[in-house]
Amino acid sequence: MKPPKVITLGEVMLRLSTPNHSRFVQARQLDVTYGGGEANVALSLAHFGIPAAHVTRFPDNDMGYAATALFRTYGVDMSHVVYGGDRLGIYFLEVGASVRPSKVVYDRAGSSFATIEPNMIDWDAVFGDATWFHFTGITPAISQGAADVCLQGVTEARKRGITVSGDLNYRKNLWKYGKSAAEIMPALAAGCDIVFASKGDMEEVLGYQITLEKGDKFTAAAAALQGKYPTIKKVVNTKRNSVSANHNTLSAMIYQDGVLHKTGTLEINPIVDRIGGGDAFAAGYIYGAITYQDDKQALEFALAASVLKHSIEGDANLATVAEVEAVMKGEVTGKLAR
Amino acid sequence: MKPPKVITLGEVMLRLSTPNHSRFVQARQLDVTYGGGEANVALSLAHFGIPAAHVTRFPDNDMGYAATALFRTYGVDMSHVVYGGDRLGIYFLEVGASVRPSKVVYDRAGSSFATIEPNMIDWDAVFGDATWFHFTGITPAISQGAADVCLQGVTEARKRGITVSGDLNYRKNLWKYGKSAAEIMPALAAGCDIVFASKGDMEEVLGYQITLEKGDKFTAAAAALQGKYPTIKKVVNTKRNSVSANHNTLSAMIYQDGVLHKTGTLEINPIVDRIGGGDAFAAGYIYGAITYQDDKQALEFALAASVLKHSIEGDANLATVAEVEAVMKGEVTGKLAR
Amino acid sequence: MKPPKVITLGEVMLRLSTPNHSRFVQARQLDVTYGGGEANVALSLAHFGIPAAHVTRFPDNDMGYAATALFRTYGVDMSHVVYGGDRLGIYFLEVGASVRPSKVVYDRAGSSFATIEPNMIDWDAVFGDATWFHFTGITPAISQGAADVCLQGVTEARKRGITVSGDLNYRKNLWKYGKSAAEIMPALAAGCDIVFASKGDMEEVLGYQITLEKGDKFTAAAAALQGKYPTIKKVVNTKRNSVSANHNTLSAMIYQDGVLHKTGTLEINPIVDRIGGGDAFAAGYIYGAITYQDDKQALEFALAASVLKHSIEGDANLATVAEVEAVMKGEVTGKLAR
Amino acid sequence: MKPPKVITLGEVMLRLSTPNHSRFVQARQLDVTYGGGEANVALSLAHFGIPAAHVTRFPDNDMGYAATALFRTYGVDMSHVVYGGDRLGIYFLEVGASVRPSKVVYDRAGSSFATIEPNMIDWDAVFGDATWFHFTGITPAISQGAADVCLQGVTEARKRGITVSGDLNYRKNLWKYGKSAAEIMPALAAGCDIVFASKGDMEEVLGYQITLEKGDKFTAAAAALQGKYPTIKKVVNTKRNSVSANHNTLSAMIYQDGVLHKTGTLEINPIVDRIGGGDAFAAGYIYGAITYQDDKQALEFALAASVLKHSIEGDANLATVAEVEAVMKGEVTGKLAR
Amino acid sequence: MKPPKVITLGEVMLRLSTPNHSRFVQARQLDVTYGGGEANVALSLAHFGIPAAHVTRFPDNDMGYAATALFRTYGVDMSHVVYGGDRLGIYFLEVGASVRPSKVVYDRAGSSFATIEPNMIDWDAVFGDATWFHFTGITPAISQGAADVCLQGVTEARKRGITVSGDLNYRKNLWKYGKSAAEIMPALAAGCDIVFASKGDMEEVLGYQITLEKGDKFTAAAAALQGKYPTIKKVVNTKRNSVSANHNTLSAMIYQDGVLHKTGTLEINPIVDRIGGGDAFAAGYIYGAITYQDDKQALEFALAASVLKHSIEGDANLATVAEVEAVMKGEVTGKLAR
Amino acid sequence: MKPPKVITLGEVMLRLSTPNHSRFVQARQLDVTYGGGEANVALSLAHFGIPAAHVTRFPDNDMGYAATALFRTYGVDMSHVVYGGDRLGIYFLEVGASVRPSKVVYDRAGSSFATIEPNMIDWDAVFGDATWFHFTGITPAISQGAADVCLQGVTEARKRGITVSGDLNYRKNLWKYGKSAAEIMPALAAGCDIVFASKGDMEEVLGYQITLEKGDKFTAAAAALQGKYPTIKKVVNTKRNSVSANHNTLSAMIYQDGVLHKTGTLEINPIVDRIGGGDAFAAGYIYGAITYQDDKQALEFALAASVLKHSIEGDANLATVAEVEAVMKGEVTGKLAR
Repeated sequence: MKPPKVITLGEVMLRLSTPNHSRFVQARQLDVTYGGGEANVALSLAHFGIPAAHVTRFPDNDMGYAATALFRTYGVDMSHVVYGGDRLGIYFLEVGASVRPSKVVYDRAGSSFATIEPNMIDWDAVFGDATWFHFTGITPAISQGAADVCLQGVTEARKRGITVSGDLNYRKNLWKYGKSAAEIMPALAAGCDIVFASKGDMEEVLGYQITLEKGDKFTAAAAALQGKYPTIKKVVNTKRNSVSANHNTLSAMIYQDGVLHKTGTLEINPIVDRIGGGDAFAAGYIYGAITYQDDKQALEFALAASVLKHSIEGDANLATVAEVEAVMKGEVTGKLAR
Repeated sequence: MKPPKVITLGEVMLRLSTPNHSRFVQARQLDVTYGGGEANVALSLAHFGIPAAHVTRFPDNDMGYAATALFRTYGVDMSHVVYGGDRLGIYFLEVGASVRPSKVVYDRAGSSFATIEPNMIDWDAVFGDATWFHFTGITPAISQGAADVCLQGVTEARKRGITVSGDLNYRKNLWKYGKSAAEIMPALAAGCDIVFASKGDMEEVLGYQITLEKGDKFTAAAAALQGKYPTIKKVVNTKRNSVSANHNTLSAMIYQDGVLHKTGTLEINPIVDRIGGGDAFAAGYIYGAITYQDDKQALEFALAASVLKHSIEGDANLATVAEVEAVMKGEVTGKLAR
Repeated sequence: MKPPKVITLGEVMLRLSTPNHSRFVQARQLDVTYGGGEANVALSLAHFGIPAAHVTRFPDNDMGYAATALFRTYGVDMSHVVYGGDRLGIYFLEVGASVRPSKVVYDRAGSSFATIEPNMIDWDAVFGDATWFHFTGITPAISQGAADVCLQGVTEARKRGITVSGDLNYRKNLWKYGKSAAEIMPALAAGCDIVFASKGDMEEVLGYQITLEKGDKFTAAAAALQGKYPTIKKVVNTKRNSVSANHNTLSAMIYQDGVLHKTGTLEINPIVDRIGGGDAFAAGYIYGAITYQDDKQALEFALAASVLKHSIEGDANLATVAEVEAVMKGEVTGKLAR
Repeated sequence: MKPPKVITLGEVMLRLSTPNHSRFVQARQLDVTYGGGEANVALSLAHFGIPAAHVTRFPDNDMGYAATALFRTYGVDMSHVVYGGDRLGIYFLEVGASVRPSKVVYDRAGSSFATIEPNMIDWDAVFGDATWFHFTGITPAISQGAADVCLQGVTEARKRGITVSGDLNYRKNLWKYGKSAAEIMPALAAGCDIVFASKGDMEEVLGYQITLEKGDKFTAAAAALQGKYPTIKKVVNTKRNSVSANHNTLSAMIYQDGVLHKTGTLEINPIVDRIGGGDAFAAGYIYGAITYQDDKQALEFALAASVLKHSIEGDANLATVAEVEAVMKGEVTGKLAR
Repeated sequence: MKPPKVITLGEVMLRLSTPNHSRFVQARQLDVTYGGGEANVALSLAHFGIPAAHVTRFPDNDMGYAATALFRTYGVDMSHVVYGGDRLGIYFLEVGASVRPSKVVYDRAGSSFATIEPNMIDWDAVFGDATWFHFTGITPAISQGAADVCLQGVTEARKRGITVSGDLNYRKNLWKYGKSAAEIMPALAAGCDIVFASKGDMEEVLGYQITLEKGDKFTAAAAALQGKYPTIKKVVNTKRNSVSANHNTLSAMIYQDGVLHKTGTLEINPIVDRIGGGDAFAAGYIYGAITYQDDKQALEFALAASVLKHSIEGDANLATVAEVEAVMKGEVTGKLAR
Repeated sequence: MKPPKVITLGEVMLRLSTPNHSRFVQARQLDVTYGGGEANVALSLAHFGIPAAHVTRFPDNDMGYAATALFRTYGVDMSHVVYGGDRLGIYFLEVGASVRPSKVVYDRAGSSFATIEPNMIDWDAVFGDATWFHFTGITPAISQGAADVCLQGVTEARKRGITVSGDLNYRKNLWKYGKSAAEIMPALAAGCDIVFASKGDMEEVLGYQITLEKGDKFTAAAAALQGKYPTIKKVVNTKRNSVSANHNTLSAMIYQDGVLHKTGTLEINPIVDRIGGGDAFAAGYIYGAITYQDDKQALEFALAASVLKHSIEGDANLATVAEVEAVMKGEVTGKLAR
């Protein structure tokens, strides 16, 4: 069997976050890292030991170079990054506490990735030894060019028999370039083998709301989605309950062949960093799907990975496979070993 | 109707706190801010968009200048500050955790505010366009001069038909200049429209303990207070339960016309900064009283403001009106919006 | 005589600088402040005790609010700031050392100020009690809208008999919106009483190069400028010699009525922060022109102010009048007094 | 009665821990302190006001000097430290959160203490005015030399009628020099008046597992231990329950004359620093045994001391006697007094 | 010969300094240490291996405890510290650069040391094994009580045949309690064997100005001083030239038996910390006088010690004897050895 | 022509340095990076855009992983790193200032690299596409195993026609495993095409001292070396003059075919980080030799690279080719461009 190699595509932003729960107006320093929904997946997979390359476009300046460097640190293959355009997108993060939510201010308009265009990527080089392609619903929401490149990626991947996963992730504050998710997402969904999606995300793609008198609405939506896009074999999702800004609980579910399987619920308290929890989940699931025979194990691994991510500063999951497997086996008490 | 403008009077201290829960003996850096019970109210109100000026006395040195600058940052009118005297009062704060309480070491003797004297303040200028005057029981406890100036403020405010609120706040470790609270506070209470006070605070002013076989003692105390000082229309208070140094719960109550109204109880976990929780409450109530028709809404706003303050570093509440209203409406799960 | 009040107009950016001379790729924190050529002048003047208001446009988000707060800290009147547009411009600063120059990466395209338009400013309110208006050549270089607003400011100021100073400051990397400096600057220069300009800046405005076989070229350029724009009474300039990234020398000169006057040269070693040295000079000159009878004293004050600025972190000069006057009188040895 | 003086013996390591819960790979700074199981006991006792000296071996370099300085800061008598050997042992600490446990990487091989040898210590000088000697099971696990010196310490102490306490603390990852705990520990246990030991620790010394159909296994093990080593008068122990990396509960027990006494259970949430919790307990018990008539009070003091330690950064307990006694009396809500 | 032990007497203050050359108004953290002219001498001597005890009075609170701890860190015997009074004196330090001098704001009024009184010190215990007593002119300038205790110290030391050195150090901003230096200093000078004094310091003690048509004024002043106070055997002094706030030069001189000896001049560039340079010199001279036969060597050691101090953060000199001797031998190029 | 790829071999250590010029005993944090003489060369080359791989041995723990990550950040190929052994070597760095030199404390005994053995490296894989091999005299000084592996590297490289450069760098404090440099170095020198060596380094290899009545001793040594080892075509060296710990000057020289060529001298003031200056020089020379036709240009590039390195924190040179070329062309005044 061909050794696994995962390709991810999407924007990477400079992340500037306030230290020690301070408010933006108080901050005299901002903590610096770089992240993006898809690149976080690549980083987490590389950290798990799965070869992973990220495809994106960076400005040809120090900010672009520093973003490249951050992902190289953790072993992500950045050789397919395209340089050009005007600026690196930025997001400012104010870290909340207790009843005060964290706050994100996006400053991503006009970024190098937003001005990406089809055929800027050498897909033959990118997909040469690839076995898996992952994208998210954020990319097509950024600009027509980004949507076109994303569709190109899906199409080129399918053409080569590469597994395609898509995190449908609907963000209504994006989608400002004149197209709606309903116009763009179906073609992308149609190219997926696996989707990460909540009921709402699926409704956005289906173009209608699921209404049921009885029965599980997520199951119904997944069935509808699969009915419409038969290449989709699995729908994977998490359920988060927010007790406070620093205390959440998390569980996961997978729909396949008409059947919904759910995990138990894990406590996350305190949350060190909430950002990237979903990306850690997707990376965990991809790792699990590649590694285990059993989808349920993949799901448990994904949940454990996501829970661990919340204890790690930054966008990306720096947990090891051994650490994730320990949580997966129930070692959730954080007991010091020495 | 005249647009609102709130005047506050009181000492501002340099606050030096240990970072990262360290003990005083461990600290190689101290975090710097400036605060005082009344100035914190002004700052919070200015942040809510209510014009507010703070009246105090600072030494004519860099510490006084930096204190002025801190309050100007958030839009407090500092043009009525009087410069003179020897030093800025200081309080050292060691931040506790779990069973270990935070610890305050005061070093405020001989401060410029402690040596303030009547007629140092140009009350005509201060109260020119003012609609509300707020003081606390800390000021008259500092020195005879401070008590005199505080009474002057109350008297001058009443003379001009300005609403007067007083946070009766009894601190037994102050009151060292030869007078007791019982000698000084009645004249001040007599000038208030609204008081913030616990049962104990009221007993200190009344000069006797409330004993009841049945019924609510706070209500009884408030009724007694109002009986003695009929200008007092409302008595407002909070009830705090301390689970640990970083986990409290908070509720609020208001007594008016013989009726006690209570809010529900909110969780605060973790506490980022406990200091100024009461000042945020007072500012919230004043904002609410100015803005809403309904006292109950004002009380809910005050409670939400105080709870949010506990998530913010420093003495003062940097929450916005929108954030407070969200908590007031039950959004207490700290869920990230993006 | 009318008490002085200075109005400045221009963009304010979020400044993100690397701590401890680190390179961008190394930085895990960035130091935060806010600055802009004209706003720095206002801040410095306010710090000297001259009332000053800054006119600009900020996004209606936390970045805009924090920028407002920074200038309020130091007493700048920010009540004329207009809120709107998409983003706060940013500049990234990597602090150099020895042979390695500091490096600035601008990320200011599409800022709220760049999309300012004529008539967004209420000039009657702005110029109500003003006596001086200051702008720089950076503003008209940003966008047509910014250039229009700048010209409007100059015109409205002249109409009211307000002194106008312009720092002609030609930055070739700006001017990207389709107009050249030669098309825009003359109308602005024509409105000035005083200009801050190097020979090169003046040539840009004149539209030709000064060539002389003998004699001082700066003097010739200033004479030519004054010949063309007779409202200009004085041309003021600094001469900087760069020994290394942290060691410069500085002197100043003023041309008036055909005569050039030069100061002596001061050492700056080490430079704590090079940014804003020219703005501190302009503010110093304006302070001096308002305060002293003698232009030479104003020039000495301006030079001393600029030299002191280089010892202060951030864009703006936080030296006091007493400190500047001490340097002006030759106290340049940095001797500790106690 | 002779005034108390406690002697402790053992390795001190440089501790390098990641700030802000960061992972090792993320850390660009490491927090520095120095600690060791026995030295932590000495520091805590000195902080309680009990004269205490620590005996160890440090390299004759800046790391050894800095370690000495740290313990001197808190009043530990370091005059019996022997200098020599190659290096100071190091332990790296990654601070966990939620489900992610803290992680310790030891780098202590070849340390100056590991190469200690009998007769390097001047026991007459060390024990001159001593009344108590404390060691732990870590020391004999390090090297033959360390085991020999430890036994020498116990023997010399007994010879002089000094009370001996041993924390039996079995760490299976140590014991790499060719001897097992079962070969070395009995001789040490035989010299103790008081032992700190869990059931597992005692089984290691006894050389067999306690199996019981009914009854308390800890009691049975303690009885067996006392049966075998009749000098042991008391066996003291804690019971920790780990809810998460930052939330534990703790209780304590003491076995004496066939009777087991248990304390109630205290909550620790959040844990600021887990390391040294057991050492703080031992120090607390020793303080209590010296100070109180009643063993139960000593146990309560020990438990309160250990709980407080968890709120303090670093290896050692910087709580005061007054603070410990407050917790001991039930003041566990962390309420701010001012 | 009796082994050396040095006693110092004087106030210790909490020092709060701005990091990274920031101005007071900018500082969001202040660096913390503790220092005082005489205690710095004790610390430096202890660091050189000379037993040293410091006598002072601290408040019985966490600030006093932390000050004690700082000096214990470096081996100073703090067992003679008296606890009582209201507060620890504070000095705020803003660190200058280039033409901007460092700035000190004192906040020491009403300190525990200022309210010290005769007979609070147990001189028998203090001077039991002492061979040297050192004080400075700062102490008698603080308060009548401090002056009385200082004179008591000198008298008790002389009584016991202990060498007395005094740093005459005249600070005109002190001396506010109603006495002048001229009234108090003569009795203290009369008790000295060695004085550290500039010409100006000596004039203050002599009560008149030295005027000379030719010849060296320092020599004349020293001769006059010795003439008046024949117990004074040596007058030692430094000469500092300030090029900028971070670049000074330093040389030293000693007068003895009518002869003046001068050292060469050393460069100090950059200065890491200017405070305590004179104390490091005094400590260096005392070390040299104890250790070397030759006064010139003692002077060279003192100069080298002081120069090294300027490269070390904090009030006190943490250079070792080996490092000082290296500079003394001309190793001043800062060349890295490895 | 084959595209360049450089292989370096050698130990990488964890570097722990004191921030802000503090002394070891003062440091409460240590700054973390990873470096080694040869790995620094690889990093610098990768940063210049030359493919580079580093060969070393790391412990299979978090310290080894973090060291790998640091070099991956900057694009060094770390795929040939071998994992095993006990620990990562450490060096502690105290950063000096003025007359106080920086201080290095090594703690590298027993490191994973010190216990490397021949045949642990897969030389076929390592040298597959390599064109250049670089080592230093530090490696054979560490242990017999390291010396054996180094010689193996040289031999295998030569076998494949790969250019070999060696930095002869004699460190007398190493060489503790029973062999002298004179026994080991000749075989290594014999394999070099290019050596970096001072006169002293060459004498160590030659086994005798160069004595000359007239003429240049470096030239004589280089001629002797080349005479003995005719594969050596060039001897390259730097000459450093140390004015103070933060002010050095640097020039360079190259000997080839009997001719010595020298560059001019550049000022370095201030030095941000002295460590790795020589490695930056070697990397600069290798880059120059690969890129330019002319050895003199290569030498100028190397000198400029080394000078720039001194302005950059950490072991490795993060200057770009464009920056080095600017200095090489005389842009040494650190003038800000914008």
